[in-house]
Amino acid sequence: MKLPEVVIRLPEWVGPWIERSPKTFPAIEDRMGFVVELSRQNIRRQTGGPFAAAVFDMNGGLIAPGVNTVITSNCSILHAEIMAIALAQQTLERYDISDGGKFSFELIASTEPCAMCFGAIPWSGIRILVCGARSADAEAIGFDEGPKPSGWVAALKNRGIEVKRNVMRDAAALVLKEYAASGGQIYNPGSTT
Amino acid sequence: MKLPEVVIRLPEWVGPWIERSPKTFPAIEDRMGFVVELSRQNIRRQTGGPFAAAVFDMNGGLIAPGVNTVITSNCSILHAEIMAIALAQQTLERYDISDGGKFSFELIASTEPCAMCFGAIPWSGIRILVCGARSADAEAIGFDEGPKPSGWVAALKNRGIEVKRNVMRDAAALVLKEYAASGGQIYNPGSTT
Repeated sequence: MKLPEVVIRLPEWVGPWIERSPKTFPAIEDRMGFVVELSRQNIRRQTGGPFAAAVFDMNGGLIAPGVNTVITSNCSILHAEIMAIALAQQTLERYDISDGGKFSFELIASTEPCAMCFGAIPWSGIRILVCGARSADAEAIGFDEGPKPSGWVAALKNRGIEVKRNVMRDAAALVLKEYAASGGQIYNPGSTT
Repeated sequence: MKLPEVVIRLPEWVGPWIERSPKTFPAIEDRMGFVVELSRQNIRRQTGGPFAAAVFDMNGGLIAPGVNTVITSNCSILHAEIMAIALAQQTLERYDISDGGKFSFELIASTEPCAMCFGAIPWSGIRILVCGARSADAEAIGFDEGPKPSGWVAALKNRGIEVKRNVMRDAAALVLKEYAASGGQIYNPGSTT
């Protein structure tokens, strides 16, 4: 039996694009601004859906970015948050990036996480989740956030994970609207029955 | 900036081991028996945690197996179900393996899915989920299933995904007990606060 492999890899433009970006991102708006622009570039360069994320350290240093590549990778797992988490763990060489609670890394997400990415956060060692657009903004253009518990923010807080919402929400939601206006594909297999 | 990659890859022993397995698995117990033995081999060969999964077609043909490699890959995303889904999508060359509802693929999981894997199922195009051990069996040896909604089975059914539980539960739970008895690592960063 031939066993396939899947490579979790950023699109080729991301490396040079990051080289031209600031080296650190001191303010939360700097970090969210970077992630929102990453989501915009991902749709303009046609490498995936209108979602981006990134893991930062407590000094505003970028550890790993992620973009949605579901369609271009033929892989429904490859949401932006999943990619950012997996690449951050690879960079830091540990599956719990907090290293048993010693370090506080932050995940910035251009849109609030779907049910899968929400469930992935507690396993990652992420200590702070910062969201731009709301789930309602993604749903407004036809995306499905999945069967996420209505108390998802409290569920993360109960696990010691801080959640900040609505950070540059309008700017983040604008990318979703741009994607819809450009005729971008709203993939949504879960809701077909 | 050096951009890392993560390869979703089965341990090396899996290919030869599958070559020695039956070519099809007609009964549900054949399929679960294969997956439970896969989870046992994963701990005995020390390539990951006590969890396995596989995607089968409606004729009992194996599309893609998955095993937990969180510790050996340094990647908290690489639960067995995530690996099986990603590899099945790679094999079938589409992110919605149902292809818009035309095909009914089944995911067999040695233990009920955690919050992340539960959330991943609706995006995958899986139409039938079959579980062996219960979440309570994983929790009994110290694993954490995460913030999964209490109505998770109904949530999947509402999306047209059939769920069958307790298939060879005792045999599946025995592997969890073997893992705990052998001193296997119970990784659990999410619950540390």
